[in-house]
Amino acid sequence: MAKILIIGTGGVGTIAGLSLTQHGNEVTFVVRSNFEELKKTGYNIESCDHGDQTNWKPHRMVNSVQEAIANDKNYDYVLVAMKALPDVFSTADIIRPVVESSPNVAIVLFQNGLNIEEPIVKAFPNNVCVSGVSMIGSTNLGAGEIHQAEPDYVKIGYFDNGSDKAPQEKRAKEFVQAYGPKFAHYVDDVVYHRWRKLLYNATFNTICSITRMDSGRLWLNGVSDSLIRPAMGEIRAIAKADGHILTEEDEDYMIDSDGEVYYKPSMLVDVEKGNLMEMEVILKAPLDVAKKYNVPTPILSVVYELLKCLQFQLKEAKGMVELPEKLERKSALH
Amino acid sequence: MAKILIIGTGGVGTIAGLSLTQHGNEVTFVVRSNFEELKKTGYNIESCDHGDQTNWKPHRMVNSVQEAIANDKNYDYVLVAMKALPDVFSTADIIRPVVESSPNVAIVLFQNGLNIEEPIVKAFPNNVCVSGVSMIGSTNLGAGEIHQAEPDYVKIGYFDNGSDKAPQEKRAKEFVQAYGPKFAHYVDDVVYHRWRKLLYNATFNTICSITRMDSGRLWLNGVSDSLIRPAMGEIRAIAKADGHILTEEDEDYMIDSDGEVYYKPSMLVDVEKGNLMEMEVILKAPLDVAKKYNVPTPILSVVYELLKCLQFQLKEAKGMVELPEKLERKSALH
Repeated sequence: MAKILIIGTGGVGTIAGLSLTQHGNEVTFVVRSNFEELKKTGYNIESCDHGDQTNWKPHRMVNSVQEAIANDKNYDYVLVAMKALPDVFSTADIIRPVVESSPNVAIVLFQNGLNIEEPIVKAFPNNVCVSGVSMIGSTNLGAGEIHQAEPDYVKIGYFDNGSDKAPQEKRAKEFVQAYGPKFAHYVDDVVYHRWRKLLYNATFNTICSITRMDSGRLWLNGVSDSLIRPAMGEIRAIAKADGHILTEEDEDYMIDSDGEVYYKPSMLVDVEKGNLMEMEVILKAPLDVAKKYNVPTPILSVVYELLKCLQFQLKEAKGMVELPEKLERKSALH
Repeated sequence: MAKILIIGTGGVGTIAGLSLTQHGNEVTFVVRSNFEELKKTGYNIESCDHGDQTNWKPHRMVNSVQEAIANDKNYDYVLVAMKALPDVFSTADIIRPVVESSPNVAIVLFQNGLNIEEPIVKAFPNNVCVSGVSMIGSTNLGAGEIHQAEPDYVKIGYFDNGSDKAPQEKRAKEFVQAYGPKFAHYVDDVVYHRWRKLLYNATFNTICSITRMDSGRLWLNGVSDSLIRPAMGEIRAIAKADGHILTEEDEDYMIDSDGEVYYKPSMLVDVEKGNLMEMEVILKAPLDVAKKYNVPTPILSVVYELLKCLQFQLKEAKGMVELPEKLERKSALH
C-alpha cells in the first residue's frame, strides 16, 4: 500500500486516482476548483476500464497542497496530472512543499510534452522522477463528471536524475504495480515514448488548434498529407538528432490514428473552452532541441508563431494581457 | 463621357461608380444582392473624398449582366469590383456577354491579387485590359450603406495583351481621366504595384485571418517581426525573380502601415462575416510564380495550407462541401 497525493484531478488524474484506489493504495486529491461541492458529492465516473462509479471519492480530498501536507508528511508518490503550462506556473514550485515534507517522495509526472522532467530533476535531484505517458481517452465534463471512453494505457519509466539507476527503476516499477499492471506498463526509455507521442501532439494537436478544425476535416482536405506528414518528418528529424528513432510506420500510425471519426485533439478542445494551450511543452520543447542540434523546422517554427498568437488571445480573454489603447506604431500613411 | 458598366458594387465598386458619375460618365450598376430594395432606396454613402450622399443612385441599376446588355450594347468600360474567387467562379465567364455585345469595351479590373489579368487577356485578347490597384479604405456595411474613411487612391495601368502598346496605354489614361485624376493615377508598371500591395496582403491579410487576430495584436505579440517580416521577405524574393524590385523600405512601410489602431484586414473581416477568402489570387498566385522560378517559400507555403483549412470551413458553412458521416480512414488503434 502506497500513500499517493494527486494534484490535478481532471480526466487523467481522476481515473489515475480511481485505479490507484482500486489497487489498494491510499489516495489524496488536491482539488482546487469546486472543492466544497466535490467534497460533498464526489465524482461520477463512466469508465470503460475501471467500471462506472457514482459519488465516488478517494481516501481524502483537500483544497490545497498546504492542507495535504498538514494531514500527512509521508507521501510515497506525488502524482502531477495538471496541465503543463511553464509559461504560466512552475510545477516544481507547486510540489515543493510536498517534497520538503515527504523527503522520500517520488514525483510522478502524468503530463503532456517533452522534457517536462528536467526542471523537476533540477529542483529535486535527490528524488526519483517517474514519467508517465498516458494514452487514455478521458474527458472531464465538469462538476465531477468524468467520461473515459478509450482504454487506460500509460507507459511508465524513470527520468534519470543522475544517481544510481537501480533504485530509480525500482521505484518506477513499484508505481506500475501500484497503478495496476493491466493499465500501466514499465518502459526502459520513457523519453522515446514522449517523442513518439509528440508525432501526434506537435502536429495534429497544434494545427487543429490553429485552424479550429478537427483532424477528420484536415484529412478530408488533404492537409494530413500536405502539412501534417512533413511536420511529423520534422519531429522525426529532431528526435533522431536527440538519439530517438521514430519510423515511417510510427508516422503512418499517427496519421490515421483518429480513424473514421471527426476527432478534436485536446488543445483544440482547450481553445474552444478558452483554456490556455500546453504549447510550450508540446511544441517549444522539441523546437529547443532542434535549435541545439541545428535541425531545420520550417513548418513547426511557423506553427509555433501562430500558436503564440492564439495563446495571446486566450490570455487576453482571461485578463492576463493588458492592451494599450493606441499602439506605438508609426505609419507613414497616417 | 464614357458608358461604364460596374459589376460588384460593394465598398470599392460603389465609390468608383460615384466618382465616375461625378466626373460626367454614364454609369450602370449590376446589383445582385438586395436589388429591389437598392433600386428603390439607392445608396447612403459617407465618403471623405466624394462627399456624403443620401439615396444616391447611378444612371441605371440592373439585376444581371443579361439585363445590362439588353439595355446597352456600347459600353466603353466594364469595371469588375467583385471579389476575385477563381476557385469558385470565373470573372471571364461573367463578363463574356458584355465583351461579346460591346466588342470595343475595355475591361477594368479593380480586384485584389496577382495575375488576375491573365485569364482575362487570354479570354479576350482583342480587348484592352486595364488593371487598378485600389488603396481605398471603404466598407460596405450592408443594405446600401457605404463608409469610405480612407482616401480614394487607385493606381491604373494596362496589362499588356500583346498587341500595340500605344492604344492600350491610351485607353488606360482615358480611364484615369474618366475616374478623376485627383483619385486615379496612371502607372507604367501596374504589375509592380500589385506585387507591392501583396507585401501586405499575402502576409498580414492571410496571417490575421488564420489567427483571427488584428494586425495590432500581431505587432504587440512580436509576430510582426518574427513571422510577418520574413514572410514579406519571401514575397520580395518571388517578386525579384519575376523582375520587380521591392525594397526594405517598402517592407518597413507595410509593417507599420496600420499605425496606432487595431486594424482588421479585409480577409479577416471576410472570415468573421463567413465570406470566402480571396486566397487564390492573394497567396496562391505568388506561390505559383515562386514555383516557376524555384524560389523557396517555407512560411507562405505553410500559411497557404492553413488557409485551405479555413476556406474549407467557410465553404462547409455555406453548404458548398459535403462531409461523409464516417471517414474512410483506417486506424490501427480502433
